[in-house]
Amino acid sequence: MAENKDPLPSWRETPSKESIVQFVAAVTDPKSEQLVPEDDRVAVFDNDGTLWAELPMYAQLAFALDRAAELGHPTSPEELKAGGLGAVLELVKLTHANINTEEFEAACRKWMKSARHPRTGGSYLSSVYQPMIELLNLLQANGFSCWIFSGGGADFMRTWSAEVYGLPPHRVIGSIGTTEFKLGDQGPELVKGTDLQILNDGPQKPVSIHTHIGQRPILAAGNTDGDLPMLQWTAASPYRTLELAIHHTDAEREYAYDSDPLLGSGTAQLLSAAADHHWTVVDMSTDWSLIFPSVS
Amino acid sequence: MAENKDPLPSWRETPSKESIVQFVAAVTDPKSEQLVPEDDRVAVFDNDGTLWAELPMYAQLAFALDRAAELGHPTSPEELKAGGLGAVLELVKLTHANINTEEFEAACRKWMKSARHPRTGGSYLSSVYQPMIELLNLLQANGFSCWIFSGGGADFMRTWSAEVYGLPPHRVIGSIGTTEFKLGDQGPELVKGTDLQILNDGPQKPVSIHTHIGQRPILAAGNTDGDLPMLQWTAASPYRTLELAIHHTDAEREYAYDSDPLLGSGTAQLLSAAADHHWTVVDMSTDWSLIFPSVS
Repeated sequence: MAENKDPLPSWRETPSKESIVQFVAAVTDPKSEQLVPEDDRVAVFDNDGTLWAELPMYAQLAFALDRAAELGHPTSPEELKAGGLGAVLELVKLTHANINTEEFEAACRKWMKSARHPRTGGSYLSSVYQPMIELLNLLQANGFSCWIFSGGGADFMRTWSAEVYGLPPHRVIGSIGTTEFKLGDQGPELVKGTDLQILNDGPQKPVSIHTHIGQRPILAAGNTDGDLPMLQWTAASPYRTLELAIHHTDAEREYAYDSDPLLGSGTAQLLSAAADHHWTVVDMSTDWSLIFPSVS
Repeated sequence: MAENKDPLPSWRETPSKESIVQFVAAVTDPKSEQLVPEDDRVAVFDNDGTLWAELPMYAQLAFALDRAAELGHPTSPEELKAGGLGAVLELVKLTHANINTEEFEAACRKWMKSARHPRTGGSYLSSVYQPMIELLNLLQANGFSCWIFSGGGADFMRTWSAEVYGLPPHRVIGSIGTTEFKLGDQGPELVKGTDLQILNDGPQKPVSIHTHIGQRPILAAGNTDGDLPMLQWTAASPYRTLELAIHHTDAEREYAYDSDPLLGSGTAQLLSAAADHHWTVVDMSTDWSLIFPSVS
């Protein structure tokens, strides 16, 4: 394959890349015994830590902290960390509720323009993983429909996911809060409430896949134990499948860690299952020649 | 326009048809000031009573009654009617739960092959409205993405909606019950639980549209007051929009009614709003030359 035609130029020539290239060929080659009809080529991705950086803090939490300060309720990352999931949910209630969906979208877009990622120095959009963008593009060029199933908020992600990943909003699924239809003086609006309706993590991910796609994926990528059920569900498809576990091993170019320092979600079960089932573990340090789009 | 090129041959030449034809031209003609970009051409439809017959009984309830009998708990339509929504939900619990999604799909497909619609004499699939099929096709040929937002169960609808409407499962949204991811001896499965999680009717419809599409529609069609919020939400789009209220006025060829005899959902608010806002009221008796595909 000519170097300038490599669809995955930021992937080094390692077994991880080989597993992707072989899988795509096997399920798309019309002469392959493992050919999967185009309508069934469904690929699902976790977002934070799988498609873009989740350290030093989830982008959505950085947004929430900035918005809390704006609303007159400043909180520090340290306080958040000490409070764990409970504190995070309280912060989300404060910053993501009692606002209609259009106002919330505007607030997200405004924040994304001004906020800077501590590691890349660019906007948070610069913290996406170039190799994963190339993978999304390769899959879409081969008839796959790519979807995101994240623990993050759908309303937050959808304000930038079209620009960054080329995915329409309906393909970007996340946690959601209660939402109320109201007929106000200015016409109808959807007002975001304070209660969490769906926390889209762990066993909820395959349930959400059923609700939002109604088809079983043939490719799944994640980076924590919260993604394991999604990968298990995918692996049990009657078709040939590919499971990718993204392993954060590069302290110099990104981060090296095995558990999220804020919420403590780990990777032990995911990596153990990957070893048992010969899933592809993507070692960021070894497998990727480039991590962020503008930083080589 | 030559007769053989009319994309809506089962629609008579009435103002209803004219409103559809003019709307589609206005939002798709590149020279139109009301042109809507293809990505934003989202159309949403109720299902029962809008795309296919809901009398003498919702197809899904006919399925549920047959399945209840099979499971050794026979119930009559009369008992169901006497019990109202509570009885319906109990019947759904009995017949739609404690079964995994693949087994349920198989049960639905088997039922659909054997059951006969009392009015058409064919399968329930023969009770779709030919004019609405033509409308779906016209819209899809003009770059629209068409979605169903029904009060019926998503898992039930998706077993036949691709065949009848040409819509992939992710575009068919309905009520959903709790679903649990389980790792059994045979591998992972999604098991349908007994609790209703989302009753997709009334103000829930625009909320579900936000969750599942993340874009505001420019066309909405419904037939009861439970569809009114969906039409209101659509009508408030900044784009030119089209709202269709399907009115059941044809006792000879279909049914004539203003409220659902089982659950009592009415049409007064919908028809009143349609009059106030000059929405298109489709009079089935006057506007449609053909109702069911095989019956002229």
